This record gives sequence, C-alpha cells and structure tokens, in this order.
Amino acid sequence: MRQLIKTQEEIGELDFSAMREAACIQKNLTKPEGSLGVLEDLAIKVAGITGNAKPTIGDKVIITMAADHGVAMRGVSAYPPEVTAQMVQNFIQGGAAINVLARHVGARIVVVDMGMSKPVNNEGVLKYRIREGTCDIACGPAMSRKEAIACLEAGIEIAQNEVNRGAKYIGTGDMGIGNTTAASAVLAALSGLPAEKVVGRGTGINEATWRLKVETVASSLRINRPDSRDAVEVLAAVGGLEIGGLAGCILGAASCRVPVIIDGFISGAAALLAARLQPRASNFMIASHLSKEPGHRFILDLLGLEPMLYMNMRLGEGTGAVLAMGIIDSALKIMHEMATFESARVSRPD
Amino acid sequence: MRQLIKTQEEIGELDFSAMREAACIQKNLTKPEGSLGVLEDLAIKVAGITGNAKPTIGDKVIITMAADHGVAMRGVSAYPPEVTAQMVQNFIQGGAAINVLARHVGARIVVVDMGMSKPVNNEGVLKYRIREGTCDIACGPAMSRKEAIACLEAGIEIAQNEVNRGAKYIGTGDMGIGNTTAASAVLAALSGLPAEKVVGRGTGINEATWRLKVETVASSLRINRPDSRDAVEVLAAVGGLEIGGLAGCILGAASCRVPVIIDGFISGAAALLAARLQPRASNFMIASHLSKEPGHRFILDLLGLEPMLYMNMRLGEGTGAVLAMGIIDSALKIMHEMATFESARVSRPD
Repeated sequence: MRQLIKTQEEIGELDFSAMREAACIQKNLTKPEGSLGVLEDLAIKVAGITGNAKPTIGDKVIITMAADHGVAMRGVSAYPPEVTAQMVQNFIQGGAAINVLARHVGARIVVVDMGMSKPVNNEGVLKYRIREGTCDIACGPAMSRKEAIACLEAGIEIAQNEVNRGAKYIGTGDMGIGNTTAASAVLAALSGLPAEKVVGRGTGINEATWRLKVETVASSLRINRPDSRDAVEVLAAVGGLEIGGLAGCILGAASCRVPVIIDGFISGAAALLAARLQPRASNFMIASHLSKEPGHRFILDLLGLEPMLYMNMRLGEGTGAVLAMGIIDSALKIMHEMATFESARVSRPD
Repeated sequence: MRQLIKTQEEIGELDFSAMREAACIQKNLTKPEGSLGVLEDLAIKVAGITGNAKPTIGDKVIITMAADHGVAMRGVSAYPPEVTAQMVQNFIQGGAAINVLARHVGARIVVVDMGMSKPVNNEGVLKYRIREGTCDIACGPAMSRKEAIACLEAGIEIAQNEVNRGAKYIGTGDMGIGNTTAASAVLAALSGLPAEKVVGRGTGINEATWRLKVETVASSLRINRPDSRDAVEVLAAVGGLEIGGLAGCILGAASCRVPVIIDGFISGAAALLAARLQPRASNFMIASHLSKEPGHRFILDLLGLEPMLYMNMRLGEGTGAVLAMGIIDSALKIMHEMATFESARVSRPD
C-alpha cells in the first residue's frame, strides 16, 4: 500500500516550459505550421512528459501481462482457458503477433505472469503470481483488496525496473482468456454504462455467447456492487490480475515521467483504473489504436485521449501499442532531423 | 497517347486465388480470426495485387513530384511560389519531413520536376518538365490536352522504371505551391461537389484567403467547363503537372501489379483521375491517412478506400504514404513470421 501511495504522489504535471520550447522548434521546421498534425502533437506531448524539449529516441519496451480468469469457465470466450499458457509459450518462442510487430519497430517484450492458473516454467517469464487466476466475478469478487493492491504495486515495480534499465517509452499489452469480460465489467463499474453497451465480441463469439457475456457482466456488478469511486475496490471486485498489473505499470511509468503507450480495450480498462487512482496519470498516456471492441471508444473518451490508428484490431498483447511506437519514433525524429526555414533557406509565409 | 491506352488495357483484376490462399494462411496463425483487422486485410490485398499469397517484403519507393501553378500568383496559398523550388532543394539535401520519415521506414525518394517554373540544377532531380508551370486555371485551361497526356505518360514511365529497378511498393507524394487549389478544382469537376465543400485551408490560409480560393475554384470550372466524364480534359482544364504525373504513376504501378500507396489530398485527386481513366486501377491503391483537407474524405469515399492513419496531417510530399508503408511492411511480416496453431501447439476455438 505504501508503494502505491508513494507512486500516486510522485506523478507530477506536464512540463509546460518544455512543451512551449518544443512547439517553438516545430514552428521553425520546413513545413506549414501544424501540417504534421498528430506527429507534432506527439513530439510536444513527449517533451512535456519527459521535460526535454527534444526528447531522446531510445529503448522501447512492451510489457505484456498474462493471467487467468475464473469467469472463463463460463464459456464467455471462443477459446478454452488453457490458451493463456499456450500463448505465453508462443511469446517466449517469438511466434506471436506481438513478437513480429515488436521486432519490426525494435521494441523489447517483457512477458509477465501476473497469475496464470499454472506457471510456465521458463526464465523468459517474469513471475509475479499474485494468485492462481481470479475467482468467477459472476459469483463474488475476483480477488481480495490486498491482492488488488499487490497487482498494482507489482506493475509499478516492473515499470520502474524497466525505466531503470533504460526504457524511454513503455507500451502495455495483455493476454488472458476471459479478460474482455473482466475489462467490460471494470468499465461498466467505473462509468455506470450498462453491460450491453460495453460488452463486445472479444476473440470472436457468436450472438448466444455475447448474450451470456452481457448477463455475466451484469451479474458481476449486481453481486459485487463495487463503489465506483474506489478504483481498488472495482479492480478487486470485477477486475483481473493482468488488468491490475497494467494499471500499476501505467502509474509506474508516469511516476518516472516516461510516456506509456496504451494498447486496446484491456489496457484501456487498466488506464481508466490508473486515471482514477491518480488523474494526473492520464497526461502521461498516449493512445495507440481504436479497437474494434465497442467499449474502447468510451474508455478513450473518458480519458480524453484520441487514437491515431484505425485498424479494426482486437487482439491485445500490445499489438496496437507497438505499431504506435514506430510512429512516435518518427515524430521525435522530425524534431531531431528536419531542416529549419533558415538552414534550408526556405521562404516563410507571405 | 499510345502508352496511356496500352497501360489502361494492361491493368488487370485482383488475383482472387492468391487472396483466398492468403486468407487461409491468416486463419492458421495464432490469433483469433480477423483480430488483426486491417493488418490482415492489407496482407490479403497485397496478395491479390501481386498474385503472390505471401508477398515479398522489398524496396519501398516514394515518388514525390513537384510543379508550379499559375494560379498561385493569385495568392491562394500562404506561401510564395518560389517555395516549390526551395523545397525541392530541401528534398535533395535530406532536410524535409518526407526525408526524415522515408529514412525511418527505409524508403527511397524519387524527386521529379514535372514542370517547375525554373529547373533545379541537380542530378538528384528527375526532369520531366512538361512545361514551365501551369496557366492560371481561373482564366483558362491549366495546360493543353497533349500536355495532360504527356504528364500521364511521364508518370507511367517513372513508375514502371522504378518497378524495373526493384520497387515492391510505390508511394505518391507532391510539392507545388497552389496545388490544393488545383486538386480542389479536379475533385469538384469530377464529382460535381460545390467549391466550398472541397476547398480547405491548404498550407494554413485565413478566412479571406479561403474565400478567394473558393471563388478561384468556382471560376476555374465556370470558365473551363470541363466534361466530368473526360478525365484527361479535367486534368488539362483545372489540374496540375504533378497531379497528372501522379495519376500516371498510379496507372503505371497498377499495370505492373505493384501496390501504390496514396498520400493525402493532392495524391487523392490524382488517384481519382487514375480511377476514371481505368476503374480497375483502384484495386491496386492503398489509402494511407485521412488528411485534414476536407475534400480528402470525399475522394476516399469515391474511390471506396479506407485510411488507416488519423493524424490530422496536411503536408503532402508523401508523408502519410510513407508512414503507411511501415505498417504495410509489418502486415506482410505477420504472414511470414507468425507461428501457426499447429507449430505453436495452441488450441483452436471450442
């Protein structure tokens, strides 16, 4: 608990002086003012986050957290629960989508077991097994309040460790069969939106399974009745171990003034929890893509973030975040490498 | 004229058998079916374009065409006309936004003088000077019909030469002070949309200049009265030398079955001309970003294309196309590098 409170307090404001300086640099580059749109906004935001008007381009780390969900036994996913562990093996062997996309942009992946039903015995997996999967949220709380805090503090520690190893930005990713159900419940609990608005097709379920999933989310709220103003209670009641871990990662990155790139719906639910625990944390977030999951747009609106990629993706793992990292790198390179009106002898506007 | 007709005829259909095979490969990769959204669609489309179910990842070329516009003398741009030549110098020296972004994704830039007022004496510029800038479209036609065809055939030749040198995809880019006015007039002429709907703020003009620009576009249509069914006439009447050249590039790439990545508004007007000259050409186009120019959405809708990047960009040069190239590479890598359910021993849906 102490670590969580300390981190909440450490998260500061954006550095407006660095942002003003960054905006000045942009104005002198050989392009009409504002014509690079989000590429300019990103560079200015990273300046505000890091306090450096010309931020360094450096190591990119995707933290992909895996956990199991008691609720998966209800058949709310198209995939059986053992797929969580199988996909973690796939991450280690480098064959998953996140591996391909991370190699493409030069990002490193940190795979974390936040609480899989059975451990994967491989040193490539960081083990923070808070518990062996959550309980079925449709019957009672996912975990205890103490375990929810442990998830958050594990995430804080992992993010801070990666920053200490040199990460210049951190991306979030998830793996957990059943986790769109938990993320939907977290969103519904925090926002008051009805289950049928926030529940989507996840890994690709049919109409009957979708109805079961809506009913499951509604039951989880009816039975647990979490206080929407208490993010830790919401996480404990209807969340997931990887969702709590990712919320912690976001707080940890923000406390180190490192930009954190938010993936899709699951990472979004974690970001919403992080923003409730410390509203200033949202200044340190960068949205990547707009997921096909309908709840994701609500989350981004609640966070005041705009995605840059419209790719109809809904895979998770950090796949959207890592694509955005390539674009953020290019935004920073614009600051470092473009000529100015003076250096290139280009006339300014009439 | 013969080269144009030959190219129009050479443009074929998508290879549906390669697309079916590509879709099959996607289904076996370790991810829920369709969960990579546009990344899957892109890989399948490139398969259809190239006729190869697992397309090769190879050389990326951005063709950035520059030209001057008689209409610029009316003050429709925030920048003076000499900026076209100054920016071409900047391209050669590597200091423009397109240089930075092309280096980032490993693309080569081909800079073409399609008809600048004064030539830039540097061997880094390909010279296809059809004429020294266009005439003022608000007084009469931009160029003769013969010159319009020469622009198209130059573009075809340039694209085909780049394919012969190994380009696996081609992106389009533009530079020309005054060219959003010409592109707006092309769109209005081809679509019947009123000038005030298709005219935007270009390089960043104020309200008074915007009104002048709308009036200029309206005049250009009133005076020239191009037949909307005759794309060559529209190009000659109200187009630009780089717009015609880019339309030719698009036809040339399509005739070689090479994907052509369409940048923003100017490239979009060229794409619309290409699609009118050969409707099958649109199958070979990939939209990159949604420009801040309001006319761009109309163009994409007319072409039946969806952009992947929402970045509020409005710079041109090929900057949106080159960002998309990085994403297309990653889409193809997914096909080549991801594990299958069998190879990774991951369970399939229940």
